[in-house]
Amino acid sequence: MIIHLNKNISKTVAKEIAQKYEAVELFTEDKTILITPHSVKKVDEKYLDHIERSWVFDNDMQLASKKYSSEIREIQIGKFSIGGKSNNTLLTIGPCGVESKEQITQTAELIKECGLHTIRAGAFKPRTSPYSYQGMGIEGLKLLAEIRDKYNFSLITEVRDSTHIDAVIDYADVIQIGAKSMYDHGILRRCGKTKKPILLKRGFGSTIQEFVQAAEFILSGGNENVILCERGIRTFETKSRFTLDLCGVAYLKEYTNLPIVLDPSHAMGYSYGVPDLARACMAMDVEGLLIEVHPEPKVAKSDASQQLNHDEFRKLFNTLKPIAKAINKTII
Amino acid sequence: MIIHLNKNISKTVAKEIAQKYEAVELFTEDKTILITPHSVKKVDEKYLDHIERSWVFDNDMQLASKKYSSEIREIQIGKFSIGGKSNNTLLTIGPCGVESKEQITQTAELIKECGLHTIRAGAFKPRTSPYSYQGMGIEGLKLLAEIRDKYNFSLITEVRDSTHIDAVIDYADVIQIGAKSMYDHGILRRCGKTKKPILLKRGFGSTIQEFVQAAEFILSGGNENVILCERGIRTFETKSRFTLDLCGVAYLKEYTNLPIVLDPSHAMGYSYGVPDLARACMAMDVEGLLIEVHPEPKVAKSDASQQLNHDEFRKLFNTLKPIAKAINKTII
Amino acid sequence: MIIHLNKNISKTVAKEIAQKYEAVELFTEDKTILITPHSVKKVDEKYLDHIERSWVFDNDMQLASKKYSSEIREIQIGKFSIGGKSNNTLLTIGPCGVESKEQITQTAELIKECGLHTIRAGAFKPRTSPYSYQGMGIEGLKLLAEIRDKYNFSLITEVRDSTHIDAVIDYADVIQIGAKSMYDHGILRRCGKTKKPILLKRGFGSTIQEFVQAAEFILSGGNENVILCERGIRTFETKSRFTLDLCGVAYLKEYTNLPIVLDPSHAMGYSYGVPDLARACMAMDVEGLLIEVHPEPKVAKSDASQQLNHDEFRKLFNTLKPIAKAINKTII
Amino acid sequence: MIIHLNKNISKTVAKEIAQKYEAVELFTEDKTILITPHSVKKVDEKYLDHIERSWVFDNDMQLASKKYSSEIREIQIGKFSIGGKSNNTLLTIGPCGVESKEQITQTAELIKECGLHTIRAGAFKPRTSPYSYQGMGIEGLKLLAEIRDKYNFSLITEVRDSTHIDAVIDYADVIQIGAKSMYDHGILRRCGKTKKPILLKRGFGSTIQEFVQAAEFILSGGNENVILCERGIRTFETKSRFTLDLCGVAYLKEYTNLPIVLDPSHAMGYSYGVPDLARACMAMDVEGLLIEVHPEPKVAKSDASQQLNHDEFRKLFNTLKPIAKAINKTII
Repeated sequence: MIIHLNKNISKTVAKEIAQKYEAVELFTEDKTILITPHSVKKVDEKYLDHIERSWVFDNDMQLASKKYSSEIREIQIGKFSIGGKSNNTLLTIGPCGVESKEQITQTAELIKECGLHTIRAGAFKPRTSPYSYQGMGIEGLKLLAEIRDKYNFSLITEVRDSTHIDAVIDYADVIQIGAKSMYDHGILRRCGKTKKPILLKRGFGSTIQEFVQAAEFILSGGNENVILCERGIRTFETKSRFTLDLCGVAYLKEYTNLPIVLDPSHAMGYSYGVPDLARACMAMDVEGLLIEVHPEPKVAKSDASQQLNHDEFRKLFNTLKPIAKAINKTII
Repeated sequence: MIIHLNKNISKTVAKEIAQKYEAVELFTEDKTILITPHSVKKVDEKYLDHIERSWVFDNDMQLASKKYSSEIREIQIGKFSIGGKSNNTLLTIGPCGVESKEQITQTAELIKECGLHTIRAGAFKPRTSPYSYQGMGIEGLKLLAEIRDKYNFSLITEVRDSTHIDAVIDYADVIQIGAKSMYDHGILRRCGKTKKPILLKRGFGSTIQEFVQAAEFILSGGNENVILCERGIRTFETKSRFTLDLCGVAYLKEYTNLPIVLDPSHAMGYSYGVPDLARACMAMDVEGLLIEVHPEPKVAKSDASQQLNHDEFRKLFNTLKPIAKAINKTII
Repeated sequence: MIIHLNKNISKTVAKEIAQKYEAVELFTEDKTILITPHSVKKVDEKYLDHIERSWVFDNDMQLASKKYSSEIREIQIGKFSIGGKSNNTLLTIGPCGVESKEQITQTAELIKECGLHTIRAGAFKPRTSPYSYQGMGIEGLKLLAEIRDKYNFSLITEVRDSTHIDAVIDYADVIQIGAKSMYDHGILRRCGKTKKPILLKRGFGSTIQEFVQAAEFILSGGNENVILCERGIRTFETKSRFTLDLCGVAYLKEYTNLPIVLDPSHAMGYSYGVPDLARACMAMDVEGLLIEVHPEPKVAKSDASQQLNHDEFRKLFNTLKPIAKAINKTII
Repeated sequence: MIIHLNKNISKTVAKEIAQKYEAVELFTEDKTILITPHSVKKVDEKYLDHIERSWVFDNDMQLASKKYSSEIREIQIGKFSIGGKSNNTLLTIGPCGVESKEQITQTAELIKECGLHTIRAGAFKPRTSPYSYQGMGIEGLKLLAEIRDKYNFSLITEVRDSTHIDAVIDYADVIQIGAKSMYDHGILRRCGKTKKPILLKRGFGSTIQEFVQAAEFILSGGNENVILCERGIRTFETKSRFTLDLCGVAYLKEYTNLPIVLDPSHAMGYSYGVPDLARACMAMDVEGLLIEVHPEPKVAKSDASQQLNHDEFRKLFNTLKPIAKAINKTII
């Protein structure tokens, strides 16, 4: 249950109601909001005078629910916004990981050439093996920030675990929470305390409901700027690395107010399938697409098989535009 | 291994090679083809003079492989064809099941209004419960054929099990093998003996490789006209009925020569998600889409939740056209 | 809803009630039973006098439900029975497929040596590739029946599709419906018309509810003797061929009245894991175990990797006995 | 590739080899071990004189592999050890979360009554919803430690994220890494720096290989004491909360040297199924079982449905003993 308390409510009473219903307290500029477990369906009559408005829910997708706020949240990324009344589709590209100044400069030039405005790459890589490349770490972050400043882009980069989250929040414009970290309470709680946009990737073994509930950790912590990113779930099929769950995306579009970015690269795991999938993602009419590109995928230190080279991306980009137009969207 | 034998080979030698390598024999108009298990990588030198050409494979996707024949098979459905050099996208609509003459006539009128040319509905329903509606059976088949003839459409309808397959082959223009029957050897073997196109749906628990191997039963039986239909696989996600596997479709497009039809209706299971998914399917650039429509979904005897009503379909149809155009396809 | 009609009810009224509630009619020796879709929760007052007793359900697991009949069904296999008040655990072994008289005789000798009483092998193999070994067919059936008669065993063998079901019913003592045929309506309906026990394997992509509903096709057709066989479901894990679903088995034991046989061989897919899993299956306290053995697994024409050789089985057998004893079961 | 360097090797050369092959360096009491990505299959000839012994691998399961060390690792927990040459099976019980002194004292009394030696409960709960009970936190840790000391037990408790890992390492005897934290690099790396045993739970969406690779983070960090805990994976089946993957356990037993603990409670999610599953787990012949018990499950603040009450546990305990005996194990 979401409860908007009256503006003139005393702090003592607010606290009393919060404790009675085991509610999370959320303080916005002008009001106090309580969010109880969804099993609470009504409050004691004696409190009704203190309540401006309230909403009940069938599950713990509450702040993210269209029932609470029906319009897709508008989120500012640099000079542009997605969601809200905008018709923008964010197209964010870049390599899996930042590897060198030369590599990331080539990426930046491609982004500039295509008239795009964000750069995305990882400095802390959450690998599944300790014996794989683990990323450039803080040096990579600095390099990314330098390029971002030079080209006047926005920077999207990933936090791997909560030991370096403050650094990522400092350097990035959009903080990406990776699929393997979707449940990381250290990260989720900290991200609730910044105002920077969060790109939350779905855990590949997580249901849509768990995905949205992870977003609720951030939203109820006080950060309204959460973007959901579907990047493929794990299924029995092994011909692709993951299975892009567009049915789940259809659900999210129907029931939640969060902007959505789709990532066909990680879902497919092989570059040959990315163009068709990217066009399908564009036709899904969401707020953004994330596509991995690398100047020379074969020598990439991670995710070599799925990254498009620059020519492959240019070709894809030209076919994305007419589909964007067909659904009245502008690629940014 | 696929082996094209020389045209003048003696039947005795052909048989000898077939037996030695446990090959399936396939007789086309002008040649004899042997297909061995893929583990056979070469034949005895003494047979080389009898062989026109041969292909080796890593798995049992052989006749369906692009390695064997790189162009998508062209398949004739009524006056039109899909695949091959055509730019056609088949859009086949209709209710889950034929229920009455009135219902199916309304469907036919909608198809005619939209300028489409096939009608699709089931008469034998492979339900998961014996206590659910099981379909009109043979009476339904007759009704569908009557409407097909009246409107000069092509008829796509489903065979449930091999006890009534001859009737379905008689009445239908395209025989649909449902997801639950994908492994039915009685059906697969019989479908290899007709020349009518087969729309083979993927079992929701079947891998892409098993799916293509089911097609190989039909192809190696002598029927070249197999269309694959992806309709969603079963995953852990429960917000949608199934998960449409577009990554798997990207694999099929890259490695097989079979035309593909996508079915967003069964994947999603809820009508609200069908339009977005249908547009994504169109953008995948495949040979067809299958969308369930019903004059009055709420009273449908099966799959009530996923069928679009006629107005919803009209609206969707108008948005599919610009996407088809963006990828240079013509909806038929 | 299951409705036991009064014994003296007129056929006309019985038919009227059946039609009104779209019920399946089941005629036992002494009564008429109607089974409606579970959504029917009560019948019209005017019919109450014709009804002896009725049960309502939350889903279409009805005849199989413990709510309808709480004791595990007793099923006779040769001289022994499982379920009911017996403490017997059927241990049925044999090769994946019958390949030759010599092979199957060696199997029979092992069964005799261990004091067991059933032989199990397939003659019609439902392979996923048309280029794999398809089984001996009718000749295999005859060979199995010959050995069964010679050794005075009971024979369990598989039906692949409904084109040869009558032959299998003729020759077998227990008809196995394989995982890929679980949804085959031709087979399920025909099996409802025999009284021979049916060993119904769970489709590897099928939920527990669908599994039990497939059993309901047979039960509502008039055959009370259905045994459920869990043999592994398909999951994302690829180190084993399937994942044995013992949690699902715990559900079946709690909520259904059908005897259960567990098949660790097909679940694991590799012989090294079969002994541990077989002991776990025994400790689950079910009505039977199915374990694949082959005189020489390496040369087996199907499922070579998962079959135990005879010495491996003897060793396992000796460790199964103390576990059976620990749970008060007798291996038959 | 695991490389044991000669004891007298110079630090400079050791570093040179490590850098050349991008190896993780592991310093044990008496030697330096390098672990390269498994793709490295041999080293330059010039280094051979510096190498005592080396092992190559097909994947990144290296330190955990039976190929490297064939005996199950012996791990000391309080006065007892599991693995190695011991025949011990750890039976660790306790509530999902510590809720009050009274509750946890009742648990301690049950443990004492049964002659067991560890207590397990969580203080930091990694819930999927921000609106659910999040655990007692540091106060809970202190309470658990107090009871542990009073009863002379060993304490197993969970770390939720890396912000409080030092506290958990301080208070616990065995640190549990929960399923949702299996990929948490902050936790994994920190746990490599303690010598306390780590109970690593498998992520419910993680493959066996990823699971073992998570263990490799800890092992290669310098902590040899890792115990794997299978607690159910996510599949399409919804009748149970998860699916206990005993086939995967059979793989782990065959190919890895890590002790295994099985958790039927979280897999099943419903108390009715726990006893049968617990007996099956015991028969799997692993190093331990984890079973959730609560003095009054109905009022538990988390996982209410799956916890056994004390009488249910006593009854189960009496049936576990004969199975342990049948496989020559001693419950500790």
